[in-house]
Amino acid sequence: MSHYKIALLDGDGIGPEIMREAVKVLNLVAERNQVTFDLQHTPFGASAYFECGHPFPEQTQKVCDEADAILKGPIGLNHEDSKKIPVDLQPERGALLPLRRRYNTYANFRPVFLPQGLAHFSPLKKEIIGDGVDIMIIRELVGGLYFGEKETGTTEDGVRYVRETLEYDEEQIRRIAKVAFDTASKRKKVLHNIHKSNVLKSSVLWNEVIEEVGKDYPDVKIEHILVDAAATYLCLNPGRFDVMVMENMFGDILSDQGGGILGSLGLMPSACIGDDKAYYEPSHGSAPDIAGKNVANPYSMIGSVAMMLEFSLGMEEEARNVWHAMQSVFADGYSTPDLSKPGSDVKMIDTEAFGDRVIAAL
Amino acid sequence: MSHYKIALLDGDGIGPEIMREAVKVLNLVAERNQVTFDLQHTPFGASAYFECGHPFPEQTQKVCDEADAILKGPIGLNHEDSKKIPVDLQPERGALLPLRRRYNTYANFRPVFLPQGLAHFSPLKKEIIGDGVDIMIIRELVGGLYFGEKETGTTEDGVRYVRETLEYDEEQIRRIAKVAFDTASKRKKVLHNIHKSNVLKSSVLWNEVIEEVGKDYPDVKIEHILVDAAATYLCLNPGRFDVMVMENMFGDILSDQGGGILGSLGLMPSACIGDDKAYYEPSHGSAPDIAGKNVANPYSMIGSVAMMLEFSLGMEEEARNVWHAMQSVFADGYSTPDLSKPGSDVKMIDTEAFGDRVIAAL
Ligand SMILES: CC(C)[C@H](C(=O)O)[C@@H](O)C(=O)O
Ligand SMILES: CC(C)[C@H](C(=O)O)[C@@H](O)C(=O)O
Repeated sequence: MSHYKIALLDGDGIGPEIMREAVKVLNLVAERNQVTFDLQHTPFGASAYFECGHPFPEQTQKVCDEADAILKGPIGLNHEDSKKIPVDLQPERGALLPLRRRYNTYANFRPVFLPQGLAHFSPLKKEIIGDGVDIMIIRELVGGLYFGEKETGTTEDGVRYVRETLEYDEEQIRRIAKVAFDTASKRKKVLHNIHKSNVLKSSVLWNEVIEEVGKDYPDVKIEHILVDAAATYLCLNPGRFDVMVMENMFGDILSDQGGGILGSLGLMPSACIGDDKAYYEPSHGSAPDIAGKNVANPYSMIGSVAMMLEFSLGMEEEARNVWHAMQSVFADGYSTPDLSKPGSDVKMIDTEAFGDRVIAAL
Repeated sequence: MSHYKIALLDGDGIGPEIMREAVKVLNLVAERNQVTFDLQHTPFGASAYFECGHPFPEQTQKVCDEADAILKGPIGLNHEDSKKIPVDLQPERGALLPLRRRYNTYANFRPVFLPQGLAHFSPLKKEIIGDGVDIMIIRELVGGLYFGEKETGTTEDGVRYVRETLEYDEEQIRRIAKVAFDTASKRKKVLHNIHKSNVLKSSVLWNEVIEEVGKDYPDVKIEHILVDAAATYLCLNPGRFDVMVMENMFGDILSDQGGGILGSLGLMPSACIGDDKAYYEPSHGSAPDIAGKNVANPYSMIGSVAMMLEFSLGMEEEARNVWHAMQSVFADGYSTPDLSKPGSDVKMIDTEAFGDRVIAAL
């Protein structure tokens, strides 16, 4: 009987609510397979800062170090509240980025996926979204502007300035390129490489390395596309993309645009994979405005569980079951409020009811 | 009788074709007003590189220095062809960025505008796009990653790397903030400030200065929104935005996403304004694949003429007339191929016919 330690970082805002539904799914999966999950809730984010004085406390680091996989809820406060925490201890800089760096989770998989039955959720017209969309965004997660040196200062004339560094080396690019080509070769054998080589020298190197790695994947076609053009075409014709690879900041922006074309960021789970450790998280924020109201969409959190089952625990079939269970809830006409616009005939249910229906469908 | 010198930089790809239609409009405007336009075509971009060995030759610099305003076509080659030019002489790095720097055109106005009658061009559903969209994106154009120091090298271990700098100081931020607040106070009195302050220290300074400048505009409400969230909401609910201000790279990406939600980048003119000089350009590329075929949409180029009439030549009424004339062509059911999808009942016309119809409507 397999035994897995799983660290659960509830996070802030809607985190605890959607984590609760994810845990239900984990428990059911454990029950009907020959596995036990040792689930360890541990503080992380702004809530951890207020409880223990640090957004990524030592105890949490220890739990994560020892875990077989980490499931993380969204973190962050609204613009005003975040001013209550010193800049470097805010949950993004003080917890999330250190988590990514600690486990060197360089490969961020962000599926932009809407099966045919859910295509009506998209803000895009039927003739654009067609039978849905199925893109895998692969974002480099531990390099670039996010982790470059930063200098804040004042010139002799009293002018405040900030200087920060966008840095990539060929090894960082090569390892994410391999992940991208591997993924593309298992899918449609086309890799869209997103860059800005007409301005950024880092993109020039990026593109060179992409082409070098591409030589080992002769069956995968590389399509180079500028990041700005990619932003246009994600709206005009998302169907032209299958696997997209890009550096950290571009990935942040385009994946959230991806959430936009799905109809809700609540449909965006993700996997953050390093060579030795992986963690899983919704790619959206903590939505402080709707926290505690039992209305958040737990899809992104439960989808992150599915990705964990697939990538970290070798339970691919159960991963598929979880996806199907969630889609069947939508197919039955139910959804959380983010996807049930006034006037549509979607039947609105709350966070907990969504989780219960997923369990029932499983 | 006023006399204006106007530098015309045709550019690459579809540039000359769409410039031709813009010139027709300029000639008509001159004819019926008490003005003469001294139109000086001068080489710029990849075509200038091949003709004269430099993408922004001295003669062009001179013509631009002496011009009252500059009208610029799109520049650039496709991915493969651009490899024929040394990296630093490629038209973006060798001509466009130097043009922006030379005239310090820090304020880039990019209207994302689709009036009610054209709302059907949007890929967004009727319930999302509503009665069209009217956003003014204000992009800082001469700072940030675009102009920061860049270092390309190889470590002792033979690993290639690139390091580039994103830099802003408070003066750069303050002047674009003023432009943004001035614009917002003439419109709906809401300014969406786009940032990434949870990761970038430059955004922390950016937001501080925005709030400082905001004190002089007590009637303008500031809404801070993360760049990733903005990318989501531009798809889900563009109507929530009126004036948006952001740094250079974010502006590049979000404005092209804006072109996406309009239905075509061909609907994106722009104005690039400095304290002493301004230039006007479509915000899209040179579309080498359709160059020379007389099918490109000249709207962005003629719209750039309209912006030039308004911002540089004080001819606001003629600017409005040009906008209306273009919209009437669409309203009559005509459009270039970028906006006439197979099966729609838009009557397809070519570049020249579009220009002729604009002239007729004027
Ligand atoms: C919270 C923030 C630091 C984070 C990021 O920018 O990576 C988030 O937006 C994401 O996309 O995971
Ligand atoms: C051609 C390129 C350098 C330019 C930019 O990135 O600014 C273009 O994309 C634009 O948006 O004007």
